[in-house]
Amino acid sequence: MENFRYYNPTKIIFGKNTIPQIGPVIKKHGFRKILMLAGQGSIRKNGVYEQAAKSLKSAGIKSVELWGVRPNPVLAKAKEAIRVAKKNKVEAILAVGGGSVIDSAKASAAGVFLRDLWDAFEDKVRIEKALPLFTVLTVSGSASEMNQWAVVTNEAEKKKWSIGSDALFPRVSIIDPSVQMSLPWKQTVFGAVDALAHLMENYFLGRDQETSMALAEALMRTIMKLVDKLQHSPEDYDSRANLVWAAGLAHSGIAAAAMRGGDWASHGIQHGVSALHPELAHGAGLAVIFPAWILQVRKSNPITFQRWARNVMQSRNIEDAVYKFRTKLAKWRAPVWLSDLGIHAREIKAIAQNACQQELGILKKLSRKDVESILKRTHKPTDKIK
Amino acid sequence: MENFRYYNPTKIIFGKNTIPQIGPVIKKHGFRKILMLAGQGSIRKNGVYEQAAKSLKSAGIKSVELWGVRPNPVLAKAKEAIRVAKKNKVEAILAVGGGSVIDSAKASAAGVFLRDLWDAFEDKVRIEKALPLFTVLTVSGSASEMNQWAVVTNEAEKKKWSIGSDALFPRVSIIDPSVQMSLPWKQTVFGAVDALAHLMENYFLGRDQETSMALAEALMRTIMKLVDKLQHSPEDYDSRANLVWAAGLAHSGIAAAAMRGGDWASHGIQHGVSALHPELAHGAGLAVIFPAWILQVRKSNPITFQRWARNVMQSRNIEDAVYKFRTKLAKWRAPVWLSDLGIHAREIKAIAQNACQQELGILKKLSRKDVESILKRTHKPTDKIK
Repeated sequence: MENFRYYNPTKIIFGKNTIPQIGPVIKKHGFRKILMLAGQGSIRKNGVYEQAAKSLKSAGIKSVELWGVRPNPVLAKAKEAIRVAKKNKVEAILAVGGGSVIDSAKASAAGVFLRDLWDAFEDKVRIEKALPLFTVLTVSGSASEMNQWAVVTNEAEKKKWSIGSDALFPRVSIIDPSVQMSLPWKQTVFGAVDALAHLMENYFLGRDQETSMALAEALMRTIMKLVDKLQHSPEDYDSRANLVWAAGLAHSGIAAAAMRGGDWASHGIQHGVSALHPELAHGAGLAVIFPAWILQVRKSNPITFQRWARNVMQSRNIEDAVYKFRTKLAKWRAPVWLSDLGIHAREIKAIAQNACQQELGILKKLSRKDVESILKRTHKPTDKIK
Repeated sequence: MENFRYYNPTKIIFGKNTIPQIGPVIKKHGFRKILMLAGQGSIRKNGVYEQAAKSLKSAGIKSVELWGVRPNPVLAKAKEAIRVAKKNKVEAILAVGGGSVIDSAKASAAGVFLRDLWDAFEDKVRIEKALPLFTVLTVSGSASEMNQWAVVTNEAEKKKWSIGSDALFPRVSIIDPSVQMSLPWKQTVFGAVDALAHLMENYFLGRDQETSMALAEALMRTIMKLVDKLQHSPEDYDSRANLVWAAGLAHSGIAAAAMRGGDWASHGIQHGVSALHPELAHGAGLAVIFPAWILQVRKSNPITFQRWARNVMQSRNIEDAVYKFRTKLAKWRAPVWLSDLGIHAREIKAIAQNACQQELGILKKLSRKDVESILKRTHKPTDKIK
């Protein structure tokens, strides 16, 4: 087993009616003026904004608001947040939303101290400091509420890339799963697929990391079981709460110890899709790409793919396991084939080219040809599975 | 699912040849003078002391040493450490050892700021601050290297009690599993039993905490699998490293979310045993007590005990699962019956009385009669299992 470092200092406050704690929590950390970053307004409808704003006000915290972060968040918005943060001399940033809002908050929290934020995405500078971050989570999947990662799209350069730094762990994340009860079904599914993908990106590198692999398998099985339960009983708070917690843990680092940082090729290809199709949900792209990646690279680590087939999918072989996985995704009404995303086969080359701007793959380094080959495995076969 | 808080800021540096990082790590945190707390000398034999001392010296860190912490550590030693820490005005404490040394370090780190350390054990004062803690782990089981808990025995009052505080999380723990390759077999087993017990104390309270329960099951199965492997191949580094990591995670809080803090009755009873028999290893006592506790309280949460039987012990019912568990313990050469510990049945009343100085049990509150009844279940039957 390889040496590793594990660190995750984010404090989680989890459960019903926890959002009113945000004001006192920020106050206790000694901050009096914050930037509150939010999305496109859903938090006004589900009552989250009202609870958070009231709590901040009662605690005497001055809050400058910036709205309008959209899914697949863009660099321009993060830069706007940097300007607002600097102009108002805020002491911390509070993200109220899902992964897109939290990622944007992380990028701007770091960007306040950088000459050019994008340099960090290009690995030209290291992120050594950032404004303190707090989050109120409203959509699960990214696990951004309990990790040090952020993904942002540079629209001009059509690059959806990531940053990571210990400075980007939220100080405190408040997670009230009940606010996710009203999410559209597809957001629950895409979040779950994203969480599964985070586990798989690490798991499939596994060889001798028995503990990390067992934890990943437990989380994968649990996430699938809970989505099945929620599809049957959408109002079941316990299933929702467990899914929300599992999705956070899935990319908290806990199942990634000694996994050499993970593979991340499927995410890389998905980011290529996103960069060209920013309208598509991240989880939707992953649902299509990940099974195809498994089929493409399965011979690079056959014992572990076999183990996944057996322990997670209850299958005797990998082909059958992938078939069962796609069938489950289809049952959840997730896209399974490239055409389900509304993407035509003629775009494959462009997607592969975009994705290959960065090196792809640790388990197996992927050439542009490999990526094209993976994308060709996402053609809907004539024998439909749904 | 109940609301919960999750927090664990300890940074873990894990793997071969990591001990020489301790000096630079402490220096980076800004400390120049520390108290190094150690046990009875095994770290002189396995090279850990030499590596740590050299690293501290190279980093320019002045180290005051206090040796002699023994298993089932005592209050008097923690008080001695407090005096040494104060007298030498150390800025931090480094524990080099297993759970006993780390627990003693935690107690003294807090005690420096308390009028009377034992008041914290009696819940008369809260621990709000402590000297910064660092650890170099040499024996796994307690998970003290990655949690906020400490257990110390007040010899005069015959009380083996615990403290817990966010101030007691180590800043950094260095874990080189290879130093545990030379441990006597029984220490490996007792550590594993302790880790299993930490999981079970939380797990058996479970009802609707699907995620925590799945993680606990994964860790329990993994720990048992790895001990089996090590019994067969004691030199297998990967099994050792995975066991060490699993044992830490087992009481890191990660599998305890929403578990109402755990039951801890079996630990309470074991502490009663320890207080009267400080010569006995903690894990040895737990191996005897936990199966008996399961049999005693199984009707208080039958679905979960049944789930444990099925998912962890591959048994159809609880009685069979406990039989298999005891058989496994015996195969590992752990004690299974009270008489294996050298304790006579006539001591049962005294142990129960000692244990019942504190309230015992969350799943089922235990009276002194209940504790006696549990201890009676540890009588070796005529049909021996080993």
